[in-house]
Amino acid sequence: MAHHESAKVRKAIEAANAEFMSLFSQGDAAGMAAAYTEGGQVLPPNGDAVTGKQAIQAFWQGIMDAGIKGVQLATVEAEGQGPTAYEVGRYTLSDASGEVVDTGKYVVIWKQEDGHWKLHRDIFNSSRPAPGQ
Amino acid sequence: MAHHESAKVRKAIEAANAEFMSLFSQGDAAGMAAAYTEGGQVLPPNGDAVTGKQAIQAFWQGIMDAGIKGVQLATVEAEGQGPTAYEVGRYTLSDASGEVVDTGKYVVIWKQEDGHWKLHRDIFNSSRPAPGQ
Repeated sequence: MAHHESAKVRKAIEAANAEFMSLFSQGDAAGMAAAYTEGGQVLPPNGDAVTGKQAIQAFWQGIMDAGIKGVQLATVEAEGQGPTAYEVGRYTLSDASGEVVDTGKYVVIWKQEDGHWKLHRDIFNSSRPAPGQ
Repeated sequence: MAHHESAKVRKAIEAANAEFMSLFSQGDAAGMAAAYTEGGQVLPPNGDAVTGKQAIQAFWQGIMDAGIKGVQLATVEAEGQGPTAYEVGRYTLSDASGEVVDTGKYVVIWKQEDGHWKLHRDIFNSSRPAPGQ
């Protein structure tokens, strides 16, 4: 039962991630922000928590403006319990030339909202050595 | 019901965090590793995923050997669904003189194991600017 539920949840999350990647490649920060819950939160490295769709849109716009033009998300595991799920994954960021500029990992807490799975808490960090180390 | 459950879960998580902080201050990396599930995982910045108690013990020992002598964990939110819970929190790391050397945020996926809440997935990042930025 739980395994069946998680397989279904994983499929839904992977579909949501495919849409997220597509929006990113189109430079659609507003569309990306709409993938988060009301009160959704990005917890980015080297900055404070970013809360709410307007702030999240500005956050992703800033990432794009800094030259990141593509994101690849690969789900490692996804597990759902009722209206909540967690996902562990790996990300790759690339620039306009397609060169990989960062790789790392993330955990997303997903919530069902209006019948869709939405990102509720989104935290990530780089797997590369810190600058200067 | 869900709120009641989450209040109970939050209390249990805060108690587990108090124990974690105490173990850290005693330099007990093995005790810290025992707070994770079998197959538990730390997803640290600037490195690969650290999986299993032995590797987690070595990871925390390395942090202590690098001069970090204290950790403060403050739960911002905790929500449980059955045997799984997620927590969002803030951390502070300090050195032997008590000086704060890093502050950041974390998400922990907790799982019930042997009747105890244990850390299952543990990801965090600094809120401070990246070195050289």
